[in-house]
Amino acid sequence: MREIFRQDLEQVGDDLVLMAQKVRTAMQDATAALTTGDLALAERVIAADREIDQVQDSLDAQCVTLLARQAPVATDLRVVVTGLRLSATLERMGDLARHVAEVARGRYPALALPPLATELFDQVVTAVNAVADDVVKLLEGHDLNLASQVLEDDDQLDALHKETFRLMLAPSADVSGLSAQQLVDITLLGRYFERFGDHGVSVARRIMFLVTGDPFVREEPLTTI
Amino acid sequence: MREIFRQDLEQVGDDLVLMAQKVRTAMQDATAALTTGDLALAERVIAADREIDQVQDSLDAQCVTLLARQAPVATDLRVVVTGLRLSATLERMGDLARHVAEVARGRYPALALPPLATELFDQVVTAVNAVADDVVKLLEGHDLNLASQVLEDDDQLDALHKETFRLMLAPSADVSGLSAQQLVDITLLGRYFERFGDHGVSVARRIMFLVTGDPFVREEPLTTI
Repeated sequence: MREIFRQDLEQVGDDLVLMAQKVRTAMQDATAALTTGDLALAERVIAADREIDQVQDSLDAQCVTLLARQAPVATDLRVVVTGLRLSATLERMGDLARHVAEVARGRYPALALPPLATELFDQVVTAVNAVADDVVKLLEGHDLNLASQVLEDDDQLDALHKETFRLMLAPSADVSGLSAQQLVDITLLGRYFERFGDHGVSVARRIMFLVTGDPFVREEPLTTI
Repeated sequence: MREIFRQDLEQVGDDLVLMAQKVRTAMQDATAALTTGDLALAERVIAADREIDQVQDSLDAQCVTLLARQAPVATDLRVVVTGLRLSATLERMGDLARHVAEVARGRYPALALPPLATELFDQVVTAVNAVADDVVKLLEGHDLNLASQVLEDDDQLDALHKETFRLMLAPSADVSGLSAQQLVDITLLGRYFERFGDHGVSVARRIMFLVTGDPFVREEPLTTI
């Protein structure tokens, strides 16, 4: 019985890593589709979001079953509760990648991003894919230093998000050339990427909770729930 | 011991209702601040979001403690798991109300919404406040008919959201008069309200799970988890 319980707990961790890997692929592909106008790739991201949802459903059912049958405590309970929360977070991250792909698909055969915004969004795309990669590593390794790093890196993504507003609202001649559709798209994309970063921060905090047991203070590991 | 457990479970339900009431007030005030340009009201919504977060923290801690000490099963387990999930959903709804208030504050003393968008957003505001009210009632009464109604009502909110894009992208003379700031604001507000509606749907589905025990099928009540 206990041996099966161990395996079930490991399965929760494995499923989270699997979800995070699928989210990472989704965001890499969505941003590639966005910047290159690759319709087939955008379609693939949109279709693949269902797989992420399916892993979530299975993971959630697994967590609830574990709670009902095994009544876990201490670290084991944290694994299950964190599993429930992280599956919801990762599912949302998958949705956001899909939304990015939907913008790319909606503008095809044109590119959604005008030349004016390319340089800024190249930085955003690099930052957001770094978040997606860090989330996989966080779930694989439960590294507290990396978790702290993710919190810091999000400040950079927030700063880039502010830049997108400056770009859109600058009263220069260049900017007045943006169409309403481009303004809408840049606003939405900026929001999607910012939220993706926020969810990365949420994963980092949950991993801190998982490792230390403390949902609020992050410096001092606690041993009780 | 069992008596205390009962009280703790009831406390979870009471805290969810309290959160939902605070979210409803936040959205009512945020939309009033938005449409009337009331800066003090917008500031109040922004400040009050902390209270919602605090109820969430206390509710989450309560749920984890319940899982650890009482090892609930069946309906009781569903109450606790649903409590954890709904607290996260309600917290996000509070954030979205705050974001609406932040747009109102950011444009003060001007109104964020141009006259062109007033009529459409009056409908959106009515619909979104109906969602906020339904969420309170759902958490108070666990009414499956109301839950079904919330799912249907969200289609209307989605339709209104699509209208905001039509309004912004219509090639009429009126619309070309929208500034970049107005386009950004309408895009973001539309997104906030749409997400608020989605979270309302999520609450409705969770209540269906709570009552029926089935996370997927909604018609046939099940007695096991």
